[in-house]
Amino acid sequence: MEKPAITSQPIHTLIQQRWSPRALSGEPIERATLQKLLEAARWAPSRNNLQPWRFIVAAKTDEAEFKRMFECLLPGNQKWAHNASALITVVASLVGNPSKPPTQAFLYDTGLAVGQLVIEAMANDIYAHQMAGIDREKIMATYSIPENHEVICTIALGTMGDAATLVPPFDEREVAARERKPLDEIAFSGAWGAAF
Amino acid sequence: MEKPAITSQPIHTLIQQRWSPRALSGEPIERATLQKLLEAARWAPSRNNLQPWRFIVAAKTDEAEFKRMFECLLPGNQKWAHNASALITVVASLVGNPSKPPTQAFLYDTGLAVGQLVIEAMANDIYAHQMAGIDREKIMATYSIPENHEVICTIALGTMGDAATLVPPFDEREVAARERKPLDEIAFSGAWGAAF
Repeated sequence: MEKPAITSQPIHTLIQQRWSPRALSGEPIERATLQKLLEAARWAPSRNNLQPWRFIVAAKTDEAEFKRMFECLLPGNQKWAHNASALITVVASLVGNPSKPPTQAFLYDTGLAVGQLVIEAMANDIYAHQMAGIDREKIMATYSIPENHEVICTIALGTMGDAATLVPPFDEREVAARERKPLDEIAFSGAWGAAF
Repeated sequence: MEKPAITSQPIHTLIQQRWSPRALSGEPIERATLQKLLEAARWAPSRNNLQPWRFIVAAKTDEAEFKRMFECLLPGNQKWAHNASALITVVASLVGNPSKPPTQAFLYDTGLAVGQLVIEAMANDIYAHQMAGIDREKIMATYSIPENHEVICTIALGTMGDAATLVPPFDEREVAARERKPLDEIAFSGAWGAAF
């Protein structure tokens, strides 16, 4: 199912076609493809080149590992993410994080990296759905993540599946229109609130 | 000048070719092109669809506006960013930011949006250099940015220029090799530190 972004100017097809489906096919993703996604993240821009992004990968081809990460999702996400072909948990490292503002560069830069990962996924016909509904303490314990790291989200990855396979309320959400604030509420010029 | 990412698997050319040059041509960027970049950011994924990203745009075609934003850069960045064709200041809004971890979703999501903006720029032969070296208090005052917002960075945008036009030490930095941590230091499986 396609849900292209509605834009005032044409944008690159990988960005226009990107969205976050829950209906995934469960078809295996090759290891080499997962490596592409990680390489795309690896080469993101980074303040002082600190590269705070870290990833824990669980491909469905490794059933035990997939199950271990799947069980760290909150119940709502478990109702659909079992059809993902891979789960990737995103972690941000505070090691060397700048003391000068913005002091949360480790979070912003990790967002930059996942931005690239998601576009590289689209280039391989793989959709990504980032989940905030995860048990972060369980993830920290399960993978022995050091204390100076923050678990951001777990990404469900897969090729497009059939919306009709989803249980409520996810089936209806899947076909609902995507919405964004109008451009003049997020892009200004000259002064705050003055539309570009 | 090209500085392609060196990867273990081929990645999409827009991501592979992306880097953050300082030598920019100064050639004008059309308003429609800047709108494309902002649209790409606008349609990024966002936790609870809060869309915390905000942008203040100063195109060089508007000399007074460009100068106003340029004067908010720290002196080091002023030595080269005068050749940018546009400056975009990135701001993250805390309005509605989740109280559940990670509580800094507004920063991570703003990173996701700029990740898309930068790739859309590449699709238009425009390079982006994100600068943390900016006077955030001056920017908050200049643009009357509300208190519950955080200034992240200012992006210098332009088509590729000539590295020889840069003053030291930027001329040498421009031609230096790009470096990233090896993949096995950022991508794990099974346990923290266990290479994927």
